[in-house]
Amino acid sequence: MSLMIVGSMAFDALETPFGKVDRIIGGSATYAAWAASNFTSPIKQVSIVGGDFPQEELDALRKRGVDMAGVDIIKDGKSFFWSGKYHMDMNTRDTLVTELNVLADFNPNLPASYQDCEFLMLGNLAPAVQINVIKQIAIRPKLIIMDTMNFWMEAALDELKKAISMVDVLMINDSEARQLSDEFSLVKAANKILKMGPKFLIIKKGEHGALLFHGKQVFYAPALPLEEVFDPTGAGDTFAGGFIGHIAKTKDISFENMKTGIIVGSAMASFCVEKFGPNRLKELTQDDIDARIDEFVELVNFDISIIS
Amino acid sequence: MSLMIVGSMAFDALETPFGKVDRIIGGSATYAAWAASNFTSPIKQVSIVGGDFPQEELDALRKRGVDMAGVDIIKDGKSFFWSGKYHMDMNTRDTLVTELNVLADFNPNLPASYQDCEFLMLGNLAPAVQINVIKQIAIRPKLIIMDTMNFWMEAALDELKKAISMVDVLMINDSEARQLSDEFSLVKAANKILKMGPKFLIIKKGEHGALLFHGKQVFYAPALPLEEVFDPTGAGDTFAGGFIGHIAKTKDISFENMKTGIIVGSAMASFCVEKFGPNRLKELTQDDIDARIDEFVELVNFDISIIS
Repeated sequence: MSLMIVGSMAFDALETPFGKVDRIIGGSATYAAWAASNFTSPIKQVSIVGGDFPQEELDALRKRGVDMAGVDIIKDGKSFFWSGKYHMDMNTRDTLVTELNVLADFNPNLPASYQDCEFLMLGNLAPAVQINVIKQIAIRPKLIIMDTMNFWMEAALDELKKAISMVDVLMINDSEARQLSDEFSLVKAANKILKMGPKFLIIKKGEHGALLFHGKQVFYAPALPLEEVFDPTGAGDTFAGGFIGHIAKTKDISFENMKTGIIVGSAMASFCVEKFGPNRLKELTQDDIDARIDEFVELVNFDISIIS
Repeated sequence: MSLMIVGSMAFDALETPFGKVDRIIGGSATYAAWAASNFTSPIKQVSIVGGDFPQEELDALRKRGVDMAGVDIIKDGKSFFWSGKYHMDMNTRDTLVTELNVLADFNPNLPASYQDCEFLMLGNLAPAVQINVIKQIAIRPKLIIMDTMNFWMEAALDELKKAISMVDVLMINDSEARQLSDEFSLVKAANKILKMGPKFLIIKKGEHGALLFHGKQVFYAPALPLEEVFDPTGAGDTFAGGFIGHIAKTKDISFENMKTGIIVGSAMASFCVEKFGPNRLKELTQDDIDARIDEFVELVNFDISIIS
């Protein structure tokens, strides 16, 4: 049984208040796999890259237990490229360039060896591709989690709603939740979105943490206050990878365990932003991760027995 | 021994996306006293009002154990009046009218009976007034906490820094912390501000919760996600009142107990926003408060033993 991660593997060019890089490794499936591979293996990767994507990046992930049989390599194609510039608050950014390249024709055909998928993470992609992947898996996974973005709410709302209705966990940011629900209050937004099908909704709020909604239950995980957010690119995908990695490791899809998964995801995301691209994720040890999770426990822990 | 609360008692006119009121009771010391009186008594109130301030409002607080000997009533004067309009996000607002009225000449002269002050809460006022109050207390209180606002950073920065250097806890919002420190990162801002004198810094982030900094320690309390924020006016003062009320009740000024105080303050603030003005605070029972604090425990509680 395994975790399947579907998403982009790409190049990014970034400008932040701390610096600028021209062409580094990026993509939702890249970040998610680096994060999740700390907790579970094998991971079955589904993506598409051009002949320009470095073989050593694929090899580095393979060494972490990430199966690349589902990654199409289009020798004479170019990898997806995104370029963006972050504002001072690091929560908002302008997209400068989007070149879909090989991603424009991405229509994954899952290898037979991927049919043992127990947990499925659908990174932000065209909803039609997300639906296509779900339909190819003969035995429904124990848990399907999907990410999306405002672009699809404008370009393909009907297909997006269909995809949302097929998953267990939807993971979006606060402005996307507001746009999808047409509600400003995140509680009202969550109530509406949970009626669209998913049993769980995770709303990411960047430096303000993340919320998990399930029925009438709600959990609020803080983000670790950081001296410097060097590069927020991939933080959401890293969060998702840490979350689903923990769920796949524990094979427990209860609300209680998802709360812990969100803390694990938040810890991984807090590393991601410390360096450009996935570089910080590549050098982490288990001790680093344990110490960071302890920081989260300290951060929110209080003694309520003092009150009564 | 007692808690002293210094601040405005006033009229507000408010417009929010949910409605409009022309002239209701407001003021930092009003909200703080309503909140704190759930936890401790006596409270020694220090403020100034005009002859237009309703006697029954003073009486209602007196019945809650709030001593009004330090509240100057200027029979032929008018009470401080503030009018504002909230934006859709309820975190930002425009001030429409500020009429200082009797507050312009506020120069409190503490009654002798107020000298037993053990805990002192200085609401947002001119720093010169805050300093004046501290200097009038012969035996330094066990804990002094102060609020302020960006206006004083522009109009009286030197006096403000002097006031800040004299207190134990500074409580401001995130944009004020950034302005005061000239740092965008709240961690860097906190490090700078703690060097100005206070041993503790509380940064209020509205719907995103509150942070407590002390040396290298940090605590992040969430805000309760609400279906509707009806009127955020006074939420910060109510938070402060709940916080200092809990500290005064327990007489424990450790970092650990301040964390609990922040949860209590957050719970009180979550009530405040449910109705216009302090109306919701006036009708609370102990059961209401206990139930709301339980909601906060549920909101942040997670089982980390699952991880290892």
